[in-house]
Amino acid sequence: MIIIMSREASAEQVTRVQQQLRASGLGVHLSQGVERTIIGAIGDRSPELMPMVAALAGVERVIPILKPFKLASRDFQPESTLVQVGAAVFGGEETVVIAGPCAIEDEEQLLSTAQHIKAAGARLLRGGAFKPRTSPYSFQGLKSEGLKLIQEVAKETGLAVVTEVVSPHEVELVARYAQMLQIGARNMQNYALLQEVGRAKLPVLLKRGMAATIEEWLMAAEYIMKEGNYQVVLCERGIRTFETATRNTLDVSAIALAKEWSHLPVIADPSHASGRRNLVLPLARAALAAGADGLMVEVHPHPETALSDGAQSLDFAQFDAVIKGLTPLLTALGRRL
Amino acid sequence: MIIIMSREASAEQVTRVQQQLRASGLGVHLSQGVERTIIGAIGDRSPELMPMVAALAGVERVIPILKPFKLASRDFQPESTLVQVGAAVFGGEETVVIAGPCAIEDEEQLLSTAQHIKAAGARLLRGGAFKPRTSPYSFQGLKSEGLKLIQEVAKETGLAVVTEVVSPHEVELVARYAQMLQIGARNMQNYALLQEVGRAKLPVLLKRGMAATIEEWLMAAEYIMKEGNYQVVLCERGIRTFETATRNTLDVSAIALAKEWSHLPVIADPSHASGRRNLVLPLARAALAAGADGLMVEVHPHPETALSDGAQSLDFAQFDAVIKGLTPLLTALGRRL
Amino acid sequence: MIIIMSREASAEQVTRVQQQLRASGLGVHLSQGVERTIIGAIGDRSPELMPMVAALAGVERVIPILKPFKLASRDFQPESTLVQVGAAVFGGEETVVIAGPCAIEDEEQLLSTAQHIKAAGARLLRGGAFKPRTSPYSFQGLKSEGLKLIQEVAKETGLAVVTEVVSPHEVELVARYAQMLQIGARNMQNYALLQEVGRAKLPVLLKRGMAATIEEWLMAAEYIMKEGNYQVVLCERGIRTFETATRNTLDVSAIALAKEWSHLPVIADPSHASGRRNLVLPLARAALAAGADGLMVEVHPHPETALSDGAQSLDFAQFDAVIKGLTPLLTALGRRL
Amino acid sequence: MIIIMSREASAEQVTRVQQQLRASGLGVHLSQGVERTIIGAIGDRSPELMPMVAALAGVERVIPILKPFKLASRDFQPESTLVQVGAAVFGGEETVVIAGPCAIEDEEQLLSTAQHIKAAGARLLRGGAFKPRTSPYSFQGLKSEGLKLIQEVAKETGLAVVTEVVSPHEVELVARYAQMLQIGARNMQNYALLQEVGRAKLPVLLKRGMAATIEEWLMAAEYIMKEGNYQVVLCERGIRTFETATRNTLDVSAIALAKEWSHLPVIADPSHASGRRNLVLPLARAALAAGADGLMVEVHPHPETALSDGAQSLDFAQFDAVIKGLTPLLTALGRRL
Repeated sequence: MIIIMSREASAEQVTRVQQQLRASGLGVHLSQGVERTIIGAIGDRSPELMPMVAALAGVERVIPILKPFKLASRDFQPESTLVQVGAAVFGGEETVVIAGPCAIEDEEQLLSTAQHIKAAGARLLRGGAFKPRTSPYSFQGLKSEGLKLIQEVAKETGLAVVTEVVSPHEVELVARYAQMLQIGARNMQNYALLQEVGRAKLPVLLKRGMAATIEEWLMAAEYIMKEGNYQVVLCERGIRTFETATRNTLDVSAIALAKEWSHLPVIADPSHASGRRNLVLPLARAALAAGADGLMVEVHPHPETALSDGAQSLDFAQFDAVIKGLTPLLTALGRRL
Repeated sequence: MIIIMSREASAEQVTRVQQQLRASGLGVHLSQGVERTIIGAIGDRSPELMPMVAALAGVERVIPILKPFKLASRDFQPESTLVQVGAAVFGGEETVVIAGPCAIEDEEQLLSTAQHIKAAGARLLRGGAFKPRTSPYSFQGLKSEGLKLIQEVAKETGLAVVTEVVSPHEVELVARYAQMLQIGARNMQNYALLQEVGRAKLPVLLKRGMAATIEEWLMAAEYIMKEGNYQVVLCERGIRTFETATRNTLDVSAIALAKEWSHLPVIADPSHASGRRNLVLPLARAALAAGADGLMVEVHPHPETALSDGAQSLDFAQFDAVIKGLTPLLTALGRRL
Repeated sequence: MIIIMSREASAEQVTRVQQQLRASGLGVHLSQGVERTIIGAIGDRSPELMPMVAALAGVERVIPILKPFKLASRDFQPESTLVQVGAAVFGGEETVVIAGPCAIEDEEQLLSTAQHIKAAGARLLRGGAFKPRTSPYSFQGLKSEGLKLIQEVAKETGLAVVTEVVSPHEVELVARYAQMLQIGARNMQNYALLQEVGRAKLPVLLKRGMAATIEEWLMAAEYIMKEGNYQVVLCERGIRTFETATRNTLDVSAIALAKEWSHLPVIADPSHASGRRNLVLPLARAALAAGADGLMVEVHPHPETALSDGAQSLDFAQFDAVIKGLTPLLTALGRRL
Repeated sequence: MIIIMSREASAEQVTRVQQQLRASGLGVHLSQGVERTIIGAIGDRSPELMPMVAALAGVERVIPILKPFKLASRDFQPESTLVQVGAAVFGGEETVVIAGPCAIEDEEQLLSTAQHIKAAGARLLRGGAFKPRTSPYSFQGLKSEGLKLIQEVAKETGLAVVTEVVSPHEVELVARYAQMLQIGARNMQNYALLQEVGRAKLPVLLKRGMAATIEEWLMAAEYIMKEGNYQVVLCERGIRTFETATRNTLDVSAIALAKEWSHLPVIADPSHASGRRNLVLPLARAALAAGADGLMVEVHPHPETALSDGAQSLDFAQFDAVIKGLTPLLTALGRRL
């Protein structure tokens, strides 16, 4: 890290900072300018020591040099991680499509959807059994009932299951029914939950928080990986901005940058990003063109009766049109479904 | 709610929407304009039915009329709620000051801080035993060890304790040591946690999420209240914006609006809002001037050795200066410490 | 527009609002609910009357039904507008590439760039003669000297010229040298300037303001069109968000939505959107995949000596790589350079 | 500035950067770490050279040390600037209140308002003759007719006039009728206009752009000051964020920080910041508590018939209530109207 001392910093304060850095095992490099004294601190632990240093008397600003994530970084592992879930592999040549309803409602809804998306080329079935909803009066999901349903349907159709887990003590339960655990955007910094899925043996789909920087998103992955679970797939789902015409703003740069900084696979969720059915195809295309390794799309047999997120869900014909609309693009990008 | 049909909506689609509304127990009012057909839907359940209606064919937009929160609303309870914690009462004439270190580090740190802030007029001692940190490599708190420490110190000094709880299964543990449970900004939409503190018997301090609208913040309070716990104090701690000169942007309008829309007490955290020690006094003043019922301030005997958030912590002399700087303002506002 | 009266609105206030609406020539439709009275106001002038109505006593909220833009709307003109500049046509099957340096520096720089981008497939040469810079101490452009230079170079290479105009009284000057006038992001709501280019006979490239909603962007186009100039091309160049890893956040949804709401062509500027050279290709791809009609890319013979925006400028080899990287994608999308 | 070289930077690239820095007259300080090479560049011109350096091969990031503003900085002039307009002085003990309608409509409206606000303690009369409106179909102001009106009314009531100028070639005209020139938020980076008011002999009220950082705001002031006009008053009017309950988010930290970084007076506009009449008093209080030197408030004899911004305008009784509500606070802060 680089420490910029304030103009008024005394010689004593400059000395004090250097002592603290050395006491913490960091190498120290002093640069006495006309306007400011600048101290370089060298060593692995520098990211975690930044807040302490920032509080020292006479310090104006502390600037990180190293990215704070390690296990998630390409510096740590240059080659791309491949994450296998069922028959699908994230991070390679395949473009993995996850599809299904926002919430699991009943067997008919789920089975018809699963059969349809499977036929269209999807590899994983999504469907929420535990639904984090802004309102306590909205449908909260079928819970364990829903988990059983999705497991059966997945077996019958040969799809793998990804479903959200919202509380540390439900990780073990959900892991019995799913092949991949989803951490939702609202829980991206729910560290107790991240640590728990880090101890699970299943791959994790980690959605970006709606106001999380790319760095914070990778730090959330780091929490999971630090517990020993390296099977993490990142999912960009739009960030919160001043624009109100769309539910969120899909950040395609984040897809490209996350792929550059990290070896983990990155997919996109154009349904949540836009909140508008007719934007799913253009956003899906944009995400893949920016380098995404896959997509997560909401599909419902009858979006107009869906218990949640109907406005952004595709019906079967619309889903087919999206897949069809992606195919030539994938070929051009040297990828395949 | 008001439903705006798209220009191309067929007569059949308009009929369909009306049928669905009536089937859901809502009153229906049709307004056929030249450009658009508009349908008014009247009834209590309209907020929760909005997503379903938004997905119906031919619907362009759905606009809420009623605020989605009920228990938290002044419509539900016009008079202000008073929340008592130890000897302090939030929401009345008193301006309650909560102070203490970001994290509990050791007895000496905590005791000296408690004695000092008590003498200066604070009523509650803050201090984190479970610390949600962006990096898994940062200090994560002393956990139950820390809880014991803060309980002892509080007893010795006659202060009440507020401390953060980060996981549903620790609510019961934390409740044994604290008089008030804090939900941090990152967990504002951790619904499993909200429900659990909703079942606890202790008052809750609910921080606003860094990208949460005022409405979403009140919906988070609604989650807690729906479980039967009405002792909720809201805390504005700055929102995330494009401005990088401050850690967050303190939203004083949110303080005034939350007081207008809700009967719950509202306090502010100028330390986290700014991330800069020298802004604590002006922001504390601004928050109180906008109508806040109290303040939460980080104080540490030696900020330069603090294990977290040192740059925004006040030392004892600085804390005294803040309290002194607030006193004439409080008198002018007809309030008191 | 729809007017939602406050719960406490008196019968008199409701009557008053209706009278005002009728006096303004609007049709009125009353809907008396249990909780609220709602008034629908029907008529062309309703968007411009909204602020007046919002101020009437007893009014809680006013909700627009019609989009406020007319000339820019697909409601007004369903078929896509084609804008011809030199040999290029924006808005049709062609994907128009604009390239060139951020600022015009000297003949050698400009001529070598022009020759190179022409050979690679670009149709327009960009280059700033008047540079709006955040700092008054930064290079402000060669002004009329630069205009002459770019005109000569364009003639020699057979490219058309697009260059920025920053002040109403320079529109006439710039129009003598360029084939297309650019309005920069900082000037998107400089209405005096918009009106002046609206009176010019040249096509206009209108960049989106960095905090402008899609609706405000189209309203800026409306300002130009209202003066009689319908040859407007929109340019998405990234919006300002909390994310600091990129200079701006490219909003691909805005490309798709602007194409849906408006008949005007839409292009993207991946150089300004990211501020990072290595993101130009993925963002260019994403923009085209989302439906953009063209691209604007910064190219400089020696980015490391550029007088502005060097960090995001491509050198010749990098530009060739971008064009090469786009070609298969364009084919897949049924478009061509 | 500090230059962080990328991990892969060659020795040659490091040398090249140093040569360029020296050639630009900067001092150079090299620090060879294990992970990265870091170069410190020392000298006055370093802010303006940053973009060039950022483009050099092998450079990963460039970090500014010095703030880019000079004339506006307290480093340049430690004591606060006093700006006199009519009988009022901004920046001293006085809290200057500017009031009046959003737009000048007719003599009766303006005169009655002027008489009322004068009696209540305001020192300057505001009123727009040139109105920058989002829609070209909204009322655009009475233009020179309005300027004459406001000049007469001001003379009659003994108030000074501040009014907006939106185009460089109208600066001279407006300066004939007003005592202070206002630059609106949308024009904060309209550099041609800033330079023109920099050449005028009148004080300037510079509103912060709705997505401008504090640093960019001070750089806009720098543009004016560089032309020789040091009489600049800054005005915080709310920034654009994700929150939709208020028109903008009043950034009280920006008031405190601008006062710390700059010697220029800072006032606040609670009317535009909130867009809600009932928030004017709490936001005005918060702004003053944060250190503002004055306020700008919209007042209209009949807000419900105002041609613009009626929803946020106060009527006479409401304005009196605001002034009354501020008085004890001012006393507590050691200030006076």
